[in-house]
Amino acid sequence: MMLLVLVMASDLAAAPRPVQRFARLTAARPCGLLRCMTLSHRITRITGGGPDGWDLFRKARRMIAEGRPVVELTIGEHDIRTDSRILDAMDAAARDGHTGYAAVPGIPELRAEIAHRVTAQSGIATAPEEVLVVPGGQAALFMAHHASCDPGDGALYIDPYYATYPGTIRGAGAVPLAVEARARDGFVPRAEAIEAVIDAFEGHARSLLINTPNNPTGAVYGRPALEEIGALCGRRDLWLISDEVYESQVWEGEHLSPRALPGLAERTLVVGSLSKGHAMTGSRVGWIVGPRAAIAALEDLATHMTYGIPGFVQDAALHALRMGPAFEAEVAAPFRRRRDIVARLLATQEVVRAVPMQGAMYAFLDVRATGLEGEAFALALLKEEAIAVMPGESFGRAAAGHVRVALTVADDRFEDALRRLLGFAAEQARKRGP
Amino acid sequence: MMLLVLVMASDLAAAPRPVQRFARLTAARPCGLLRCMTLSHRITRITGGGPDGWDLFRKARRMIAEGRPVVELTIGEHDIRTDSRILDAMDAAARDGHTGYAAVPGIPELRAEIAHRVTAQSGIATAPEEVLVVPGGQAALFMAHHASCDPGDGALYIDPYYATYPGTIRGAGAVPLAVEARARDGFVPRAEAIEAVIDAFEGHARSLLINTPNNPTGAVYGRPALEEIGALCGRRDLWLISDEVYESQVWEGEHLSPRALPGLAERTLVVGSLSKGHAMTGSRVGWIVGPRAAIAALEDLATHMTYGIPGFVQDAALHALRMGPAFEAEVAAPFRRRRDIVARLLATQEVVRAVPMQGAMYAFLDVRATGLEGEAFALALLKEEAIAVMPGESFGRAAAGHVRVALTVADDRFEDALRRLLGFAAEQARKRGP
Repeated sequence: MMLLVLVMASDLAAAPRPVQRFARLTAARPCGLLRCMTLSHRITRITGGGPDGWDLFRKARRMIAEGRPVVELTIGEHDIRTDSRILDAMDAAARDGHTGYAAVPGIPELRAEIAHRVTAQSGIATAPEEVLVVPGGQAALFMAHHASCDPGDGALYIDPYYATYPGTIRGAGAVPLAVEARARDGFVPRAEAIEAVIDAFEGHARSLLINTPNNPTGAVYGRPALEEIGALCGRRDLWLISDEVYESQVWEGEHLSPRALPGLAERTLVVGSLSKGHAMTGSRVGWIVGPRAAIAALEDLATHMTYGIPGFVQDAALHALRMGPAFEAEVAAPFRRRRDIVARLLATQEVVRAVPMQGAMYAFLDVRATGLEGEAFALALLKEEAIAVMPGESFGRAAAGHVRVALTVADDRFEDALRRLLGFAAEQARKRGP
Repeated sequence: MMLLVLVMASDLAAAPRPVQRFARLTAARPCGLLRCMTLSHRITRITGGGPDGWDLFRKARRMIAEGRPVVELTIGEHDIRTDSRILDAMDAAARDGHTGYAAVPGIPELRAEIAHRVTAQSGIATAPEEVLVVPGGQAALFMAHHASCDPGDGALYIDPYYATYPGTIRGAGAVPLAVEARARDGFVPRAEAIEAVIDAFEGHARSLLINTPNNPTGAVYGRPALEEIGALCGRRDLWLISDEVYESQVWEGEHLSPRALPGLAERTLVVGSLSKGHAMTGSRVGWIVGPRAAIAALEDLATHMTYGIPGFVQDAALHALRMGPAFEAEVAAPFRRRRDIVARLLATQEVVRAVPMQGAMYAFLDVRATGLEGEAFALALLKEEAIAVMPGESFGRAAAGHVRVALTVADDRFEDALRRLLGFAAEQARKRGP
């Protein structure tokens, strides 16, 4: 027999021990039976609440914690640490007394260096006043949506998507509107699909979030696609939020920042970061580039949201950027090598198909010929081969039947794991029959 | 003759030079005449838009930049830097590879250490799951309001107040509701004043923000005041957001965390930080302590707002906390000495009256006997004595006729500056006549 027990927190100490234990268990979740003050609706709705597709990731982590030899190819974390020259710069800045409040929009030297970099890479003249230094790309995503959408406004994003996108939009009080980019279009969204979602939404859509090079698919949007998206943003008066954190990891074609296209600078907020390009994931340092008026308003938000980021981290970031393109190429090199391993091995079989690996640090593999969904494939692969990859479904509906393989372990281990993945897939396909 | 000129950004290069210059000037503000995409209402309204009372601060900074010998007693920045032992710990952590993504809610050791500290200091048993590590006290304030208020809800705060409070509430989408705490009540708010503001508000008030020890007034709320406030929060079903960042700087009485009062743990979110207590202002590390369900929801917000804080900063914070109460006393000692200097010098005259300096790193001085408003007093003091203090008006209506003097320069310089301030005040009072 089950009983529902309502206990005031203040009475809990006097309650029977099983009630206390149950209360401890349930109190850890907002939906717990223990009385809890009402939280805001928006904070309790940031995550969807249901299974989030990250079960496999957590399962793999548990296996590793238990000492089992899992090959971990789930998340986008480099297999190198932050370069010691960057750590030297951080330590020197801290010893030199750069431990007090730093300028909230970023120290002038760092804003200037980012402006210089953006100018050189995108081809559009960019001033330091068009740059805001923020605590990482995730903060940039949150702040860009906060600046472009009021509560209840629609914020478009492309499915497949990086895991935090819909939650970030909900956290900023807006309504996430997914637009599916189809596998048969190379996962590049079509303007008509975006417009259809806008038209179906009963409120006011204010922003469109894109990501090129793309996580998880590896697609790099070309000029025609970006021009089409840009024209649509003009037509529908949308802010374009352009997540370019993988800009230095391009293997085919070239990275094009939509902000550089005619007429788009005034409506584009670029999200940048040193996490991926400089192996500084843990330093939490990134930027937003946009129109001066938007950056001035975002500085007000930064003042009230975090009051800037550590000065010594900014000095480290400045040093990292000044190491120039050669250093970024050095950080990107292992991913390029492993991407070539994927291409070479995939050519030897016909079961697993590759989505063109144009950029970013993942291989996005179509496993539909095995007859398995991405999630079932990934779970079986973990069980039978102790290889952890992310189910496509974790990144949205459009990614079903795919898995994302992070290129984040040493080349020989990576090649061995991929060989076993392909062998596993071949076996599944064989069992399934013609 | 004035002309209003509307120029498309894309046409600006072809415009006459004076138009270009004017456009550069106005484009830096959201209200500029240049066409700019519409930003969200909430972000453009974070600051009031009018004079914010910080003109004096900026004026003093300009004078210093010009090489003039200003005694800077405006903001709450220590005259020491972060201790080298803490920087050693940070550097060691970074060299040891703690440069990747760190656990978003805080590394387990740091959450446990904060829980231990809160338990020891407040007297209420606190578990690591009731602690969230965040990027500084300002982020904690933003997140606490985000968690307790939905857009349009009322958020109460006490005037005089720390400068960012109303903007933080607006940034989180809520409506700031000021409650004046009167000079004659020692700047401790009365429950009936709070209730009157709730009753006058047409929406739903959800939170009350208090700050003890108080910036700018130096008041430390006693048990009766906190019990009255706590009872009110229960009666009106409010979240109590308790900003306790000055908890280790108490000169009279003792710091009492309202979370430790009966029935308040379930509705209190405590804001803590290592900035003031450990001279780590630039490291941007703090915490929120609250009910497990609230902390679990706030972890979702942290995932989507900043994705955690640097692991090496968390290791530094862990080391700092483990240095224990003796280290905090060492950091606080200069402020206690200078606070005693204020008490000694004030006793020698009758013009300037002291608000009881019970805590925090400021002296809050009543200069009404000079016949000057706080702002006029501060501006004249800067001009005639090159001493920069903050006008009380910067901290709200209830602080009019006061100035805030930060206890943040070496004792001898501080004593000299205060002597000159009192001499200046005496002269003003003399001129005014009896």
